[in-house]
Amino acid sequence: MKRIEQALGMAVEQSLVAALSHADGPGCPPLLAAAIRHAVFPGGARIRPRLCLAAACACDEDDTSIADHAAAAIELLHCASLVHDDLPCFDDAPMRRGKPSVHSAFGERIAVLTGDALIVLAFQTMARGAAQAPYRLLPLLSIIGRGVGVPSGIVAGQALECETDVNLRQYQQAKTGALFAAATMAGAAAAGADPGPWRALGDCMGEAFQVADDILDVASTQERIGKPIGRDAALGRPSAARELGIPGAVKRLRQLVSDAMDAVPACSGADGLRAVIAMEAQRFLPADIAACAT
Amino acid sequence: MKRIEQALGMAVEQSLVAALSHADGPGCPPLLAAAIRHAVFPGGARIRPRLCLAAACACDEDDTSIADHAAAAIELLHCASLVHDDLPCFDDAPMRRGKPSVHSAFGERIAVLTGDALIVLAFQTMARGAAQAPYRLLPLLSIIGRGVGVPSGIVAGQALECETDVNLRQYQQAKTGALFAAATMAGAAAAGADPGPWRALGDCMGEAFQVADDILDVASTQERIGKPIGRDAALGRPSAARELGIPGAVKRLRQLVSDAMDAVPACSGADGLRAVIAMEAQRFLPADIAACAT
Repeated sequence: MKRIEQALGMAVEQSLVAALSHADGPGCPPLLAAAIRHAVFPGGARIRPRLCLAAACACDEDDTSIADHAAAAIELLHCASLVHDDLPCFDDAPMRRGKPSVHSAFGERIAVLTGDALIVLAFQTMARGAAQAPYRLLPLLSIIGRGVGVPSGIVAGQALECETDVNLRQYQQAKTGALFAAATMAGAAAAGADPGPWRALGDCMGEAFQVADDILDVASTQERIGKPIGRDAALGRPSAARELGIPGAVKRLRQLVSDAMDAVPACSGADGLRAVIAMEAQRFLPADIAACAT
Repeated sequence: MKRIEQALGMAVEQSLVAALSHADGPGCPPLLAAAIRHAVFPGGARIRPRLCLAAACACDEDDTSIADHAAAAIELLHCASLVHDDLPCFDDAPMRRGKPSVHSAFGERIAVLTGDALIVLAFQTMARGAAQAPYRLLPLLSIIGRGVGVPSGIVAGQALECETDVNLRQYQQAKTGALFAAATMAGAAAAGADPGPWRALGDCMGEAFQVADDILDVASTQERIGKPIGRDAALGRPSAARELGIPGAVKRLRQLVSDAMDAVPACSGADGLRAVIAMEAQRFLPADIAACAT
């Protein structure tokens, strides 16, 4: 199983390298090209693209070319959202993934453009992936576009931070859940399967990830997670860790991962996918923090 | 001919209304929804989507549904670039199209997200347009993505403003020309024609538009063009009007429009398209300024 994990990781990195090779062709402004690389490499947990690929593999698609591209597109969109979220007008975050955030390293103008470029590149990457099966581009684009745009994708979720009366569940669903749901659905669609039944799995994993993120923000250190901690409290954001306490939040996380396993649709690779989900979930929290609810 | 002009204008507005109706569905954060509308309506000259539609019509495509959507997508991407260009870290423009810029009216955070949302919405709009002919989505997405992303679309052009050693022609081609070329090529691709021969027409119109914009920045008033004037000089930007003088720049504009007419590819509606181009070009400059080179 460890080898499957490693294979997923390698496939995602290779797809991202390939996607970026199209971006900094002749004439690309050097600062922008460097900032785009800075935003994408080295990466974080790459959980969304790994889920996308794992879903496609579970659907028994031998040719993973479309799924590889869809996974890369999803990660590029995630990176774009991080770059813009870190901007001075939002979180004003100096660090990300253990190094300076894009605007800290390259300035605010290049950071705005890096996010824009990554969004466009994501859609171009989907298109390149579908070159051999163009009829799969439309469902993929629809699924992934919904996960990132308005009315209820990442961008909408971020915009809810500017509203005064916000429903917590709607906020977390848009800001985090939408792209997780897009990841599992896009994996299925890339493999030619009906994406609808794959939404629940993504929803559960997205909520689990959100809870883990809340826990780390309270219980970890900047050195371990590569970004400032205590931001939820400082910015008045809702947090499962603060509502339930760390042990309560860890229990909630376990329940959500269990729900995710139950949500795996019938497919030839269902058992393998459940094993992958268990391993992915182990990466959400360091063992010492996860152990505090035992 | 005037009726064709009016029909183009109405078709573009209707397509934009339809595109935005998908954006502010249930759950869309109200501020973001309002800012997206503010960024798109009322519009400017809508020259890029009109060119896209006119090219598609010249290719004798009776069903303009795909071209309508492609035209709307192109205008949404243009609006996105204006919103981000106006941000405090770039031009810090208080006014746009005769009213407050998006960040002036809604704040910087919503302005960043409005640009992001419009980019995503543009690609979703292309996909909706291709629902009946999914095989046309891939070339459309490739053409329009190239016009807006890296290495040489609008985003790259804007990023060149952050570089110290910039080739003027490369800058203008990326910042303005690329989306004009995408407009004519996308119009042809939407109609099922080979887009390659349609690039030169877009290039000429883009350069003509850039020259007209340079002239207005020197010779017009904020009241007439709806945004501050004298920005090219203030920001040290290259300008045909400052290099050639107003009469010289007007002559250059006329030559470029003539080149555009010559660049219309062989197609059943070539004569009609040339007439549309002549009328569109008349809208570039007020008559009194255009007359100064006679």
